[in-house]
Amino acid sequence: MDTLTRIFKAESVAIVGASSNPEKRGHIILKNIIDGGFKGKVYPINPGTKEILGLPCYPSINEIPGKLDLLVISIPAKNVPEILRNAKGREIAGAIVISGGFREAGNLELENDLFAAARESGIRIIGPNCQGINFTPNKLCASWPLFIKQGSLAIISQSGTIGATLAEWAEEEEIGISGFVSLGNRIDIDESELLEFFGNDNNTKAIALYLEGVKDGQKFIRALKNVSNKKPVVVLKGGRTKRGREAAQSHTKSVAGNDLIFDAACRQFGGIKAEDIIDLYDISKAGSMLNKSVKSVFIITSSGGSGILATDYSELYGLEVPPLPQSLKGALTEELPSHCIINNPLDLTGDTDAQRFKLASRIASEENFCDCLILIFGDPIPGATEICTELKSSSPQEIVAVYLGGGEVGKAETKRLLQRGVITFPTPERAAKAIGKLIRQEA
Amino acid sequence: MDTLTRIFKAESVAIVGASSNPEKRGHIILKNIIDGGFKGKVYPINPGTKEILGLPCYPSINEIPGKLDLLVISIPAKNVPEILRNAKGREIAGAIVISGGFREAGNLELENDLFAAARESGIRIIGPNCQGINFTPNKLCASWPLFIKQGSLAIISQSGTIGATLAEWAEEEEIGISGFVSLGNRIDIDESELLEFFGNDNNTKAIALYLEGVKDGQKFIRALKNVSNKKPVVVLKGGRTKRGREAAQSHTKSVAGNDLIFDAACRQFGGIKAEDIIDLYDISKAGSMLNKSVKSVFIITSSGGSGILATDYSELYGLEVPPLPQSLKGALTEELPSHCIINNPLDLTGDTDAQRFKLASRIASEENFCDCLILIFGDPIPGATEICTELKSSSPQEIVAVYLGGGEVGKAETKRLLQRGVITFPTPERAAKAIGKLIRQEA
Repeated sequence: MDTLTRIFKAESVAIVGASSNPEKRGHIILKNIIDGGFKGKVYPINPGTKEILGLPCYPSINEIPGKLDLLVISIPAKNVPEILRNAKGREIAGAIVISGGFREAGNLELENDLFAAARESGIRIIGPNCQGINFTPNKLCASWPLFIKQGSLAIISQSGTIGATLAEWAEEEEIGISGFVSLGNRIDIDESELLEFFGNDNNTKAIALYLEGVKDGQKFIRALKNVSNKKPVVVLKGGRTKRGREAAQSHTKSVAGNDLIFDAACRQFGGIKAEDIIDLYDISKAGSMLNKSVKSVFIITSSGGSGILATDYSELYGLEVPPLPQSLKGALTEELPSHCIINNPLDLTGDTDAQRFKLASRIASEENFCDCLILIFGDPIPGATEICTELKSSSPQEIVAVYLGGGEVGKAETKRLLQRGVITFPTPERAAKAIGKLIRQEA
Repeated sequence: MDTLTRIFKAESVAIVGASSNPEKRGHIILKNIIDGGFKGKVYPINPGTKEILGLPCYPSINEIPGKLDLLVISIPAKNVPEILRNAKGREIAGAIVISGGFREAGNLELENDLFAAARESGIRIIGPNCQGINFTPNKLCASWPLFIKQGSLAIISQSGTIGATLAEWAEEEEIGISGFVSLGNRIDIDESELLEFFGNDNNTKAIALYLEGVKDGQKFIRALKNVSNKKPVVVLKGGRTKRGREAAQSHTKSVAGNDLIFDAACRQFGGIKAEDIIDLYDISKAGSMLNKSVKSVFIITSSGGSGILATDYSELYGLEVPPLPQSLKGALTEELPSHCIINNPLDLTGDTDAQRFKLASRIASEENFCDCLILIFGDPIPGATEICTELKSSSPQEIVAVYLGGGEVGKAETKRLLQRGVITFPTPERAAKAIGKLIRQEA
């Protein structure tokens, strides 16, 4: 088993700096590991306490019996190197260093010493100055806040907050994540290794990356090339403008990447560039939920305007919106009320109910002339979930739902759609853009 | 009093096609007018019923005693012209024709007859085939769903659903609207007249328009020129691509506008072009909530990455992010912990609490070197509302809050911030883009 696998699939974890104080990160992380349902051994380390959260406390790592895979460290920065040196010989795979106070606070020497200590003891490092890791297939939430829903989206982020926000959205929408890694100062394990790890991880179908720069350009390009052949890699880069780049350099205390070179690397090696945090989420969510390549869409809508915007965005982002074949046009004209606009987009108009949606989408699904049906519920349509769920199980096409507004009905249906695994977006533009950008990388 | 003013500030309204059936639009609209707290006279018209929702029913308009300002009509299309002809001489200002079944359903002759009947009786028409109007200063919700919160944002939309969605977001965020008009087939009153009306309306500070084409290009340009001198006019145009334009032509059964001409008109006459529904909402929300022109921003953040993205988007959308003056840098360095990054963006780092935000923003506010403070709460920071509310009342700068994620705390603080009138966005990019695009029109 390689080292990164041993870290994410750890069977035993020690929390150095575990605390009884609910405000301390050493408490929060221990609690999240327990509450997340981690099945392995958990060892709180704190020389001043006997028990924390019902678990016996150990004064140091050396008192822990048996094998130890992973350390999570949240103690003052200056004490971290010593912890690692003392762990030499324990064959620990990795240490997640939560503690801040290294390079980002001007203490470059201390950071160099941390790196040296890690090398001496053969322990790989994530961080320091990071928000930890989460790997839901192992129910290991060595991070905060607590996210437990297992999904197929892996998040790697140079900003803890941005990564956690993506994970929070995925938890709220109940699509879940496979993993989350906060890179912190990334003195050792970097985005490229993590990309390869999640690229090989069968739980992961898509990877979202937030970066301000890459640690090693050649290594990143190799990883991107390998992984983007297997699954979508979506990247948002902070520091695209002059002032933004200056801010990124202050933040990471390292040279921020040149954006043009980064763009070219993405274009050539298959990375999908996101414009902003929401775009990063939407595209990688689509990558984690769709099963096949989508190149053409049939749009069915109760809102004429929304159908037009979905068409615009499909065209803008490279999806075909082909005219209806005559046979399909005929079948729809026969079955639907005369005021419906039989076209692509198919406008069922504002008086539509679930029954009309069901009828239209069944006919559309049988005549398999597009890869994907986009169903836009632009008004409260109780029953949207049942229609989409049934279509999803019976149609050769991918099913994408949009619920635009619709008040309390819209909110409830959106929740239920996502719970049933039907990908759903809040606006037609976000839906078309996400699936359009996703597909282009395969071109 | 001009006709549009008489329509929106109507003191007496008759609902033709009022119904006891809660599923009918003639019931829903009557109920919304009552539940919205309308203070004028309300007359349900239905020859088959004595009373609806506690109000006495009239068999026809002619039985109504006294003055009548406004009709809301929801009966089968073929009967609408007769209603208008019978109302001749009643000096009714306008009729909102909800009924569909005219040009959009292929019945062009019926639509022409409706127009002729309206002219004969001197009644101006909104619609037909529309979702009605809402004017909160008059507590007149002759539309659905029920929106009652009064705000400063007016919405004019060629798509009922898109307009209602914007209004729904404004209601949810408790910023409210001044008015909402669903144009429908706009055989008479058009976007240009409505633009002029809301341009002159003191309750309205910003106008959001969704259009697929304009009815009269010259008239629209005149209105845009007049109104955008007074307040922001934000426009989203559906049908920007070839296939989208074709769909728009099917939807409105009229020639969709040429996008290049439309762009040029906006550029020359001060319209602000929105990219999508969310952008339309964000920019017009900013226009309705900010009090003065913002050209430069000071970004204060607990999340380094979010500060970088806010900087990128400020630069991309024309906002200055100037370096800190030495005096301010000195004052902040003295007061803040050493690991904070004293710069613009000012990175208070992930361990920030409300106290540190308060301290930093107070110092920043005193040294008045930017028009606007953007405060990014990138982690749960209880107390954000109090800090921003106090700043808003005491600072010369505009205050813009961003709450990125933050779980339940973030949701609750976002709600409270908006309730206190502090403009708040869910991501740093949306904040910077909205205020940046808003300002450019004044350049």
